[in-house]
Amino acid sequence: MTQTETAPVIVTPEQFLTYWQGQRRLTRRVIEAFPIAQTEDQLFSFSIGGMRPFGVMAWEIYQVSALTLGGLLSGEWPMPDWREGVSFERAALLKAWDDLTEQINRDFLKVDIAFYAQQHLLPWGEMSGWAAAIYAVDNETHHRGEGYVYLRALGIEPPAFYER
Amino acid sequence: MTQTETAPVIVTPEQFLTYWQGQRRLTRRVIEAFPIAQTEDQLFSFSIGGMRPFGVMAWEIYQVSALTLGGLLSGEWPMPDWREGVSFERAALLKAWDDLTEQINRDFLKVDIAFYAQQHLLPWGEMSGWAAAIYAVDNETHHRGEGYVYLRALGIEPPAFYER
Repeated sequence: MTQTETAPVIVTPEQFLTYWQGQRRLTRRVIEAFPIAQTEDQLFSFSIGGMRPFGVMAWEIYQVSALTLGGLLSGEWPMPDWREGVSFERAALLKAWDDLTEQINRDFLKVDIAFYAQQHLLPWGEMSGWAAAIYAVDNETHHRGEGYVYLRALGIEPPAFYER
Repeated sequence: MTQTETAPVIVTPEQFLTYWQGQRRLTRRVIEAFPIAQTEDQLFSFSIGGMRPFGVMAWEIYQVSALTLGGLLSGEWPMPDWREGVSFERAALLKAWDDLTEQINRDFLKVDIAFYAQQHLLPWGEMSGWAAAIYAVDNETHHRGEGYVYLRALGIEPPAFYER
């Protein structure tokens, strides 16, 4: 039934799903690791070198992930409205995050595998479905790495990178 | 000839090679972006929150990448000696980096594609060849993200993340 049995592949859809969700679980732990100092949530206030707070990056990760799932399923890649639905509130972010987790679990394996080799016009350029999918994960890993430095600067030990 | 013609796949070996080398080119630009203040190379001295300087992380990225290429080709995954060949000198790092770039270009497509689905015993656990390959890239993207914060804290605009 699976491609693995007929011809070996680098990664199956099932493996990619596991990989992506593992990354998303780690990012969720990083979100949760940010401290609340008095009434101020460092998730939305702490910053280094003029960069965005990690909570704002996490909303971007969420929106890029949602766009990517939707695009792979529908062929539509609309530029996200970066402010739509975004709330500078930790509980709202985690709720949206968890809803998307369920949606990815429900729908990711419905993606037509032919979509990965095809070229798609994303808001940030034309690329294959593979490049679009892995870009979503790379963007997450990149910003989460930035979040690790914020946590260290706040004196907090970040979650282990290799635990997914 | 290619798998794409017979059955669609998420990513071909050629696409993975292009992807990996794009990431490595970006990391190389980040290495080069670190300033030298008087006689002190910030690549090997600047740090936030007790973390390693970016040059030390870059040597780790280099070693994990070399291990991964070697492991995928040979099935051998020895624990790297993290100090072997490591020099706290920018030119030596870039030289090793460029040599590995050539080696990856020369050898990556020789990897038996069946290796990706098989389980391998890496120094950091048992995983599929796919998981090992993508872990090398993730580790690079993660630490490079940390390097972006260092650069911003030093007042330097990092290279564009999406340019590969």
